[in-house]
Amino acid sequence: MSEFTHMNEQGRAKMVDITEKSATFRKAIAHSSIFVNKKIYQQITNHKVGKGDVLAVAQVAGIMAAKQTSTIIPMCHPLPLSGVDITFDWQLHEHENQELLITVEVKTKGNTGVEMEALTAASVTALTIYDMCKAVDKGMVIGQTYLQEKTGGKSGDYKRDNN
Amino acid sequence: MSEFTHMNEQGRAKMVDITEKSATFRKAIAHSSIFVNKKIYQQITNHKVGKGDVLAVAQVAGIMAAKQTSTIIPMCHPLPLSGVDITFDWQLHEHENQELLITVEVKTKGNTGVEMEALTAASVTALTIYDMCKAVDKGMVIGQTYLQEKTGGKSGDYKRDNN
Amino acid sequence: MSEFTHMNEQGRAKMVDITEKSATFRKAIAHSSIFVNKKIYQQITNHKVGKGDVLAVAQVAGIMAAKQTSTIIPMCHPLPLSGVDITFDWQLHEHENQELLITVEVKTKGNTGVEMEALTAASVTALTIYDMCKAVDKGMVIGQTYLQEKTGGKSGDYKRDNN
Amino acid sequence: MSEFTHMNEQGRAKMVDITEKSATFRKAIAHSSIFVNKKIYQQITNHKVGKGDVLAVAQVAGIMAAKQTSTIIPMCHPLPLSGVDITFDWQLHEHENQELLITVEVKTKGNTGVEMEALTAASVTALTIYDMCKAVDKGMVIGQTYLQEKTGGKSGDYKRDNN
Amino acid sequence: MSEFTHMNEQGRAKMVDITEKSATFRKAIAHSSIFVNKKIYQQITNHKVGKGDVLAVAQVAGIMAAKQTSTIIPMCHPLPLSGVDITFDWQLHEHENQELLITVEVKTKGNTGVEMEALTAASVTALTIYDMCKAVDKGMVIGQTYLQEKTGGKSGDYKRDNN
Amino acid sequence: MSEFTHMNEQGRAKMVDITEKSATFRKAIAHSSIFVNKKIYQQITNHKVGKGDVLAVAQVAGIMAAKQTSTIIPMCHPLPLSGVDITFDWQLHEHENQELLITVEVKTKGNTGVEMEALTAASVTALTIYDMCKAVDKGMVIGQTYLQEKTGGKSGDYKRDNN
Repeated sequence: MSEFTHMNEQGRAKMVDITEKSATFRKAIAHSSIFVNKKIYQQITNHKVGKGDVLAVAQVAGIMAAKQTSTIIPMCHPLPLSGVDITFDWQLHEHENQELLITVEVKTKGNTGVEMEALTAASVTALTIYDMCKAVDKGMVIGQTYLQEKTGGKSGDYKRDNN
Repeated sequence: MSEFTHMNEQGRAKMVDITEKSATFRKAIAHSSIFVNKKIYQQITNHKVGKGDVLAVAQVAGIMAAKQTSTIIPMCHPLPLSGVDITFDWQLHEHENQELLITVEVKTKGNTGVEMEALTAASVTALTIYDMCKAVDKGMVIGQTYLQEKTGGKSGDYKRDNN
Repeated sequence: MSEFTHMNEQGRAKMVDITEKSATFRKAIAHSSIFVNKKIYQQITNHKVGKGDVLAVAQVAGIMAAKQTSTIIPMCHPLPLSGVDITFDWQLHEHENQELLITVEVKTKGNTGVEMEALTAASVTALTIYDMCKAVDKGMVIGQTYLQEKTGGKSGDYKRDNN
Repeated sequence: MSEFTHMNEQGRAKMVDITEKSATFRKAIAHSSIFVNKKIYQQITNHKVGKGDVLAVAQVAGIMAAKQTSTIIPMCHPLPLSGVDITFDWQLHEHENQELLITVEVKTKGNTGVEMEALTAASVTALTIYDMCKAVDKGMVIGQTYLQEKTGGKSGDYKRDNN
Repeated sequence: MSEFTHMNEQGRAKMVDITEKSATFRKAIAHSSIFVNKKIYQQITNHKVGKGDVLAVAQVAGIMAAKQTSTIIPMCHPLPLSGVDITFDWQLHEHENQELLITVEVKTKGNTGVEMEALTAASVTALTIYDMCKAVDKGMVIGQTYLQEKTGGKSGDYKRDNN
Repeated sequence: MSEFTHMNEQGRAKMVDITEKSATFRKAIAHSSIFVNKKIYQQITNHKVGKGDVLAVAQVAGIMAAKQTSTIIPMCHPLPLSGVDITFDWQLHEHENQELLITVEVKTKGNTGVEMEALTAASVTALTIYDMCKAVDKGMVIGQTYLQEKTGGKSGDYKRDNN
């Protein structure tokens, strides 16, 4: 049970004490995705050429969410993020639905990692795309959301094995 | 392009005008899930018997996120939610990882639906479980997040076909 | 256990469903207080004559907190407050410490009461006074905080018996 | 002094009681602007043709600020906004600096007007443009910010005389 | 008046300049309490044995409030909290009402103390318990809220004399 | 286009990476103003003599907004502000309207500048004055808002030439 660091002596949640941890450079990369039908795929990609841009709004939402992570996730420590970048890649399939892969990279110099900031930003980016396209189709599905890699900190680096 | 209601005449994002829509009872149910390894599965389920309770924290986070949806999702209308309920069900598999299914039901009497509130609460519930267990394993994956059903409003009811 | 309306079928917290409750006029009055030493008492009361005004800042903090109640108190419903008023009265004692009584009145037309908004505003008003005077004395004590009365709603009126 | 409705009997600020006011349709239009040098003017307008879009980010910021108005402006009532739209128009001058006019229209059905929501959104839109272009020139100036018109509510309609 | 460090030269409030203060380890412990009747006492303590847990929700609320302190208390500096822990102890009396003592410990490495974070978390923990039990009895009273001790910082350590 | 540091490789907005920048002392001073008619001018200035104080509320709003800048301006980095001070000066004219000049000084020790914090605080201070006086006259105009000077940071000092 010792690994459940979020529990205090009374067995309830606490915000883990990181006072003794040193401030080092840390980075985390997370992924999420959203599956959309052909019509939405076309409208999003065409809008890029024009002026309207669903992804621009989603990106702003994701970046703002990264900064709000410690107010959204109860036991998360507040961290002064030093950089957030979100990119999009279409994974084209032959069937009806296309998948938009979301990649979020977050950096900080702080006492604890930024995994939650990257994951939260990825989720909110996907949720925002859902919101802006749901008038066309409510059947969109937000795909798996997971940590791709993290560097920095005492617990060492982590890199997801995607195979 | 007329269905992209979030775009204004200059092709940029706007918050859709719902002034003319009437306030009716509306409900939405959304799902998310998280896949955890055996160790985490045992710790979460055992904690329920004791006092510590990862799911209690996640549930509070999800409910608070439902109320914050319009500050997290840029084009979402603020709505006075009248009820939020989150439940958990384990989907047990024979292999290493177990899946915790998250179900969120949100209700309101308002001018627009609460799909985004249900989806956002489901995502944040899953993210919070990740946060509280990540000291044990960073390889957890948040499963698909989607709308299960909605009722109320002019656009009619929606029920996901899960087959 | 049926009175613990904040618990769902799984025994965990939920935001109570008030969809069926009707929107009526509701009012709540709450009290808190803060005991300060002679020096602080004199500085606060003298400042009123001049320009600096500890109580003006505390009042703004209390009003803003009333509006934030549903983001601070997890199971609280968001309510469109229609009025908040905070007043101060000194309860003078012969001994060293003087007590500043804080009274908060909150009104709404909504589906549920505003007790928590009044209590939260009263607490935050007291906390802000503590913050602004703590350089002089950290020994200040925030007095009892309680609901004085509420009107409106199905559960009927409540008036505290102060004897 | 009776017109200073934001003052209570003790002469301090309060949130005005609007319980008795009826919920009617209300609209407000506000303007702000920002003066930018030639280089920034060219970069913003060229970006529109490409993918990057300073104005898209500013617009999202303005819309989100409209929804946050009652948490930013202390005595503002929380209102469920039903629509926000922001548009941009360049006012081209012969001299070095070009002016980007910002127009914000906010709608609600509520007990009080949305002037502050429109003004706050206009200011935040301008501030965001400053933020995104300040690496090029810190000398940008945010122009006058004012209410252009409002309709609805007991105090009657207002239309600014621009001459 | 020099001790009223929150006042600027015009006699109005300012956020005190702590730029020159050095970042050191700081800790603060604050107390609050809530008096509940026998029925609520039994329900809270029995729920601990079962699954529902009023105190788990209150604890999450308190921890989240600690992180929000600088947005709730106007002149408070934002601080990256490094640890928050909340514990509960019943003070049993022979008479009708039982008192639940709330203890909050907050830590940081920062330029200023965390007294307000500890006090705010204690108040919000008590307010949340009130909220979750008010359907049973609105007569609960939140007891005195005060700083128990603080360590770190130039102004020296403080320890309350409880006698 | 290299100076548009807020754009990522896909041409969309990102939060600029400041991980490598060193934490130094930084200061920024910004101005805004508001033009009010004679009646409002008299009421604001008379209130100073009495107890009610429009400017006290506006000042609290401005200070709180400075702390919220990174949640209001999408690409702004969160910074632990170490000091905020707001002052007011009347610029008296012979004609009908009087101008209240708002000066905001913000300090931090951080990786990036506090220009946006000073500008945002100045805007919100002016907006709050508008809000509190709009019952008297909706024709008030918020004057130009701009950076007066900044010091600290690699990009060097900036001082506006007011001629």
